[in-house]
Amino acid sequence: MVGKSQIKFIRSLQLKKYRKLNGLFVAEGVKLVNELLQAELTSEGVFTTHPELLPPQFSSFEVIGEADLKRMSGLKTPNKVLAVFRIPETTEPVLEEWTLALDGVKDPGNLGTIIRLCDWFGIPQIVCSEDTVDCFNPKVLQATMGSIARVKIAYTALEPLLTDSEHSTFGADMHGENIYELEFPSKGILVMGNEAHGISDEVGVLLDKKVSIPQFGQSSVESLNVATATAILLNELRREGR
Amino acid sequence: MVGKSQIKFIRSLQLKKYRKLNGLFVAEGVKLVNELLQAELTSEGVFTTHPELLPPQFSSFEVIGEADLKRMSGLKTPNKVLAVFRIPETTEPVLEEWTLALDGVKDPGNLGTIIRLCDWFGIPQIVCSEDTVDCFNPKVLQATMGSIARVKIAYTALEPLLTDSEHSTFGADMHGENIYELEFPSKGILVMGNEAHGISDEVGVLLDKKVSIPQFGQSSVESLNVATATAILLNELRREGR
Repeated sequence: MVGKSQIKFIRSLQLKKYRKLNGLFVAEGVKLVNELLQAELTSEGVFTTHPELLPPQFSSFEVIGEADLKRMSGLKTPNKVLAVFRIPETTEPVLEEWTLALDGVKDPGNLGTIIRLCDWFGIPQIVCSEDTVDCFNPKVLQATMGSIARVKIAYTALEPLLTDSEHSTFGADMHGENIYELEFPSKGILVMGNEAHGISDEVGVLLDKKVSIPQFGQSSVESLNVATATAILLNELRREGR
Repeated sequence: MVGKSQIKFIRSLQLKKYRKLNGLFVAEGVKLVNELLQAELTSEGVFTTHPELLPPQFSSFEVIGEADLKRMSGLKTPNKVLAVFRIPETTEPVLEEWTLALDGVKDPGNLGTIIRLCDWFGIPQIVCSEDTVDCFNPKVLQATMGSIARVKIAYTALEPLLTDSEHSTFGADMHGENIYELEFPSKGILVMGNEAHGISDEVGVLLDKKVSIPQFGQSSVESLNVATATAILLNELRREGR
């Protein structure tokens, strides 16, 4: 039996303010919750209308009715399982390999897609500027399809990171060098900018090289979506490094 | 002055059924409407709260109030300009170059992003299976950022297209050949499948080659989003063909 105040508390975690305040976030849906449980994130409560969908070794959950799930959920159509997890502590970024840095990415779907891409391409870590959308935003979590459990994400100012890095720093920019005509090193930092404004001036001046994806045909399209541009650039890094 | 029945008619075009019935679709937002006007699509009515935002040579519009725009609009926050356009007649697909074929892509955001990608990479034409989401769906139009004006889109069964093609046919498939280890020809058809189920069996048997994007690291991510996978594959086609 879940109480009214508990339901209200869980619903409050839809907002970044309350996530920060409590150090907790909410994940919904069987696949996402299972991935997070398996990644050994600390769960502070698992609620389900269908207990048979949880991992068999997992015994600590509460069976609730559809109506209560609907009251807890941030989704129009709640998806059988909802869990509250502790936000993992972030450690200082370690630049052992390629790192992706995001400078003010705002759209939750874009960030979620980018996290999923990093998981696919074996990029272990994303460093986000403080004004990038919160990765524990429910829409980000949905779009990651569970990859949030495997990619480390830190929020910090990008300037010190880029200044201190011993590795080369690259940034996606419409007027950058053609990616087909350069060779990426085996380590480095790749910066992707905001959906409307690209990379900020403060970060731009700290880049070793700006790179661009060539445009073909008669198109007057102004830019690529940041998630699709990230897809193309990570593929370029990896195809060369193999 | 717009009447109540006109407003209701325009709002009905949010639904595919009424778009088909009337051969009309609605576009919203300054940028999108301007792109469509410049692409010489036939407009059947342009409504705006801010006439100064329309192209200066364009004189045929109706100035309306915020309240009426809100009643016409499918957006939560209407965006100053709304126009009704005639759906262009689709011609038979001509396979003069690389063609992208979509087999049951369902998500409007994905289709819109894919149209924008084709515009960027100079792919002149997309052929969609009948069960692919309607490209005049308002959410698709928004995601194209105006590229819908420059890429031809036909809806037809994919089987005859693939059977009759003299060019090689490729399809994205998790178990396909590594894209880094093959060379794409200068013409062909690339097929992308449904978000959850991939390419259908009926289409799969007609492919000359299945191709896959290599996965790196320890990831257990099952697949890439169809729009990001399309981004990577179109980039691969173009980087080789240049």
